[in-house]
Amino acid sequence: MELHVVINGRKDLAGQLYNQLRSAIESGRLAAGTQLPPSRLLAEQLGISRKTISDTYAQLTYENFLTGVIGKGTYVNTRPAKNQPKQSHSQLASAEVIESWRNLPVFLRHPTLEGSLRYDFIGGATSKGQFPQDDWRRCTSHALRQIAGSKGFYSYAEGLPALRNAIARHIAFSRGVNCQDEDVVVCNGAQQALDLISRVMTRPGSLVAMEDPGYPPARLLFGTHGATVVGVPVDAEGIEVDKIPDGTRLIYVTPSHQFPLGVAMSQARRVALLERARELGAIIIEDDYDSEFRYEGRPTDSLQSMDEHGIVAYVGTFSKTLLPELRLGYMILPPAILEAVVRAKQLTDLHTSTLPQWALAKFIAEGCLLKHIRRCHAIYAGRRERILSRVAGDLSPWLEAVPSVAGFHMSLRCKVPIDMPLLVELAKKVEVGLYPIEPFYYQRAPQDGLLMGFGAIETLDIDPALDRLRDILQQLS
Amino acid sequence: MELHVVINGRKDLAGQLYNQLRSAIESGRLAAGTQLPPSRLLAEQLGISRKTISDTYAQLTYENFLTGVIGKGTYVNTRPAKNQPKQSHSQLASAEVIESWRNLPVFLRHPTLEGSLRYDFIGGATSKGQFPQDDWRRCTSHALRQIAGSKGFYSYAEGLPALRNAIARHIAFSRGVNCQDEDVVVCNGAQQALDLISRVMTRPGSLVAMEDPGYPPARLLFGTHGATVVGVPVDAEGIEVDKIPDGTRLIYVTPSHQFPLGVAMSQARRVALLERARELGAIIIEDDYDSEFRYEGRPTDSLQSMDEHGIVAYVGTFSKTLLPELRLGYMILPPAILEAVVRAKQLTDLHTSTLPQWALAKFIAEGCLLKHIRRCHAIYAGRRERILSRVAGDLSPWLEAVPSVAGFHMSLRCKVPIDMPLLVELAKKVEVGLYPIEPFYYQRAPQDGLLMGFGAIETLDIDPALDRLRDILQQLS
Repeated sequence: MELHVVINGRKDLAGQLYNQLRSAIESGRLAAGTQLPPSRLLAEQLGISRKTISDTYAQLTYENFLTGVIGKGTYVNTRPAKNQPKQSHSQLASAEVIESWRNLPVFLRHPTLEGSLRYDFIGGATSKGQFPQDDWRRCTSHALRQIAGSKGFYSYAEGLPALRNAIARHIAFSRGVNCQDEDVVVCNGAQQALDLISRVMTRPGSLVAMEDPGYPPARLLFGTHGATVVGVPVDAEGIEVDKIPDGTRLIYVTPSHQFPLGVAMSQARRVALLERARELGAIIIEDDYDSEFRYEGRPTDSLQSMDEHGIVAYVGTFSKTLLPELRLGYMILPPAILEAVVRAKQLTDLHTSTLPQWALAKFIAEGCLLKHIRRCHAIYAGRRERILSRVAGDLSPWLEAVPSVAGFHMSLRCKVPIDMPLLVELAKKVEVGLYPIEPFYYQRAPQDGLLMGFGAIETLDIDPALDRLRDILQQLS
Repeated sequence: MELHVVINGRKDLAGQLYNQLRSAIESGRLAAGTQLPPSRLLAEQLGISRKTISDTYAQLTYENFLTGVIGKGTYVNTRPAKNQPKQSHSQLASAEVIESWRNLPVFLRHPTLEGSLRYDFIGGATSKGQFPQDDWRRCTSHALRQIAGSKGFYSYAEGLPALRNAIARHIAFSRGVNCQDEDVVVCNGAQQALDLISRVMTRPGSLVAMEDPGYPPARLLFGTHGATVVGVPVDAEGIEVDKIPDGTRLIYVTPSHQFPLGVAMSQARRVALLERARELGAIIIEDDYDSEFRYEGRPTDSLQSMDEHGIVAYVGTFSKTLLPELRLGYMILPPAILEAVVRAKQLTDLHTSTLPQWALAKFIAEGCLLKHIRRCHAIYAGRRERILSRVAGDLSPWLEAVPSVAGFHMSLRCKVPIDMPLLVELAKKVEVGLYPIEPFYYQRAPQDGLLMGFGAIETLDIDPALDRLRDILQQLS
């Protein structure tokens, strides 16, 4: 590996080298602190004499562009870099992106960039400080040993066999999902599962049905594949199956814990949905994103375990049970689409990084995941109780909870008209992060409400936060 | 987190529990060695008496489905599981994948599955046993500390700022690529870079031009987006620019080290290519997959650094310099497509796993990558020398090397007609893995040849392997 310098011909070698190094330093391309190659090596590389190199280094050192450290080498000096901006848009050629990719919204903010609020009811964030560092570190050491012994080639598109086995056992135990290791495909979180299934099932103009309200990144994603996305209303029993239009190829649902409302799909509705999909020749994506956390009632069967026709693709993620930024998820695929999805995975990024895969396989196999879920479950249950009790109490003039038995968010409905943008703004001023349910609707929301995530907020912070919310609601009334 | 059991009504609770546990064990859903929940916990979960649970466990233990270990718990016994195969294809509903995803070839084999050959000239594999374990372990510890302190939310679609900075500095130094941190987008290897750029630049029917011969996974990928892929011939100076058809939106090239032939694109051809792309309003993907390893001559400028119109997307990977299975790569994007590609990254998998990202950022910043590349460079240079000297020597009646100055594979041309399938078969019998160049051609190959990778084969194995090759060639003559 070499410093990038281009020498043309044999004339004024020192001048050519000087000009290139100086402009690389001035432009910031060679940053302060960068070590230059020893003159002997650079001389070999460029096929010019060592003396020419040393003279050039000496000149640049004299001019304060470089510093020589005896016994260590020659380094670029700290100095104000001239920023050379890239050409402006007006100079660009006519190359441009296709329409469906223009002006897409940013749908997941960076809380770290925006500065966190003291009391944040954001959804989808796992409990800070609960990450099982020691167990994960031990499993990562195991992963490093596996990688060090690898063959230096690519791994399996479907995922590591050890991880597919661990996942199959885990979900058989916890969710009653009926599968063999061979049905499991590892991917980069649930979002990639949606992408891969959509790629093999839809073409421009295909109909995709999904719950309304629903998960915006799914809606946007299906749209970029050219699909026509139809929002199907959700009632207290889940998606209104009779409103799924004819011609639908793909149906995206969250039956255990509807996103964002939180309702569970009734047994009757599940049976109807399976029957409707069979009749349409459609594939159902069952996104079971957070149902490991379940607080009351008996578990319901997954759609996957009720499926007798091979039409359900079950999607799970470790973003909720472990950590979102690990980007690990999986699919349990029916035979009709399994092979095509594996090819899609291979063509889009070959396979998921093996470092987190090995670590997770060990983490599940040793029981660390179960242990971690149990611990978080207890924490989330406490937070949920606290919110429910306040909503049933002093917040009850304004808000009511939508029934929900799982996950780590719930939704609240407004019982009286509330100026939501103003509520959010006033709450933000007192360090409370609130998230209206309205943006999750495809059509107009029938009723205002709030999505209340309880992953990020500490248990002891809930009461002070809801005190502030109550004060604002009183003020707005 | 709970064992998945569904109880209906209040009748025959013990019978319901018994039947479900037994069938879960018989079907293999509850695997041998799985620990069942303590009766107290399961009783709470199901809302039935603890005695009902204990009685059921006792019955199943008596029937040898379970084993109780005093002080530890109740476990599923090892016994021949009845395999319950999933329904056959004939029973499936009419759901099926779209045409472009049917019957795609498997393009990257699993060498571990197929059993490695003693002497393997496979391309794309990095040198086994050279992985810098200790440095990488230290950098991974750093990564774990970063993750443990994270906010439990998603990270940046573009990649971690620390890694984007490290990459920008690395390629400015090593490849003269002119960029700011903001132009860098981290992705899962070069394959994902091609996918994301193609997503935002092509729609069904769009023209994509690529070198012929070329990289098959790229060709297949562009095809699955519905693009019409045109193979443009390659001569000794690189892609034949005047054969790039009108209407082309995307041009995929490997200028530093043409894949698979190995030739470098001439300066004149580079200028012509940039001019042609500008005229077309096309984006050029410059895939610079292995040019950190350079053996002779002076470095040439990257297309990216010659680009004055913002039409070159530079793609790099750490699969060749570090390890393929880490799945880490990057793009340096022109302003016209940067934002759309970041959205595409976010919609397809939100972002790349932060665990390997943090580790790599540290690894580059501490100089470990440069050190590692220098060490591998020396090893690969020795292997390359060995092959070149044999090809110029006793293999010269049959083979000649295509000029190439970089990377860790080269290509050899057949000087006389050789029965290639027979050659490959005979070589395999004596543990030598050979790879004909012909499958990399889109149209008919003008001449037979071999792709000779020297990442996987040890230096001392090259002579014995080429002795065997010579013996077979003599035998075939």
